[in-house]
Amino acid sequence: MSLTSFTSYEGRQLFKEALNAGMVENYFSLVGNFTTQTETSYCGLGSLAMVLNAMEVDPGQTWKGVWRWYSDEMLECCAPLDLVKEKGITLEQFVCLAKCHGLEARSQRFDHTTYDQFKADLYKTATEPGHHMVISFDRASLGQTGIGHFSPIGAYHAEKGLCLVLDVARFKYPSYWAPIEMIW
Amino acid sequence: MSLTSFTSYEGRQLFKEALNAGMVENYFSLVGNFTTQTETSYCGLGSLAMVLNAMEVDPGQTWKGVWRWYSDEMLECCAPLDLVKEKGITLEQFVCLAKCHGLEARSQRFDHTTYDQFKADLYKTATEPGHHMVISFDRASLGQTGIGHFSPIGAYHAEKGLCLVLDVARFKYPSYWAPIEMIW
Repeated sequence: MSLTSFTSYEGRQLFKEALNAGMVENYFSLVGNFTTQTETSYCGLGSLAMVLNAMEVDPGQTWKGVWRWYSDEMLECCAPLDLVKEKGITLEQFVCLAKCHGLEARSQRFDHTTYDQFKADLYKTATEPGHHMVISFDRASLGQTGIGHFSPIGAYHAEKGLCLVLDVARFKYPSYWAPIEMIW
Repeated sequence: MSLTSFTSYEGRQLFKEALNAGMVENYFSLVGNFTTQTETSYCGLGSLAMVLNAMEVDPGQTWKGVWRWYSDEMLECCAPLDLVKEKGITLEQFVCLAKCHGLEARSQRFDHTTYDQFKADLYKTATEPGHHMVISFDRASLGQTGIGHFSPIGAYHAEKGLCLVLDVARFKYPSYWAPIEMIW
């Protein structure tokens, strides 16, 4: 099993198939807010900023000028930003942060759920407006360099068992299709 | 004539049609590097950073950590950044900046070209790898608030005469399809 670049010929074909299968419901709003994590440890914050902007949540504060908009360094809640800059955030802190900003959020740990439930959650993410999935994973499990990482899922190709990872560390790994078994 | 949101039902349908017509050649690399201008006057810099990252140009300097990657505030050349922060850049400075970073670039002014040439350029942008178009326009001409603005074109729907504007001021105007006559 291996990853497929989103921009490759094969990656585009996969996208076309997923689009035609109606499995990209939240892709458009997410990709329109695709962002690079602004610090190397802000993968959790960058992923959440994407989801918040995709869902058009009002941050209740201005970003720059008169504009209300989320950028990752505005997400200080549940953990002090200094500490996040040093260590990143945990899955619990991610959920806490999402709730802090008005989202309904729940975490689903690998060892406390089933593969079928994971697939059902992916299906929901791919087909129901406003349902997003952010994965927290060990890069080694995808054959990548690095350690723990967060990124949102942009689409699901159920037939071929692949999902599109909109990786917020774009300077390192541009978007890719990953076998859901590897993600699992 | 009016604009159509990229995330609306109609906007998605237009994308599907453009995709199936093979008119989104440079969309995937561009959208994978979609960015928000980091200052309200950095629309030109943000647009160019997207194109440079989409074309995988090596900035020859690190962004953060060990990573070589473009963000808009790294684009200081042709005009001092302090001045850009205050006034933005001109079309000439945009072209100068693109050349500074190793791209072949040319500007095409509305009053020095023809509508047919504009459509031919759009077609090239939509079908040939590595050909990008960034438009410099008066927001009023699209019925938007604001003045001069830069943004890249992500796709072209030749049949319906529309192009996809990946607007870098995403906090203000998320991506939209615009009639090419209005853009022209």
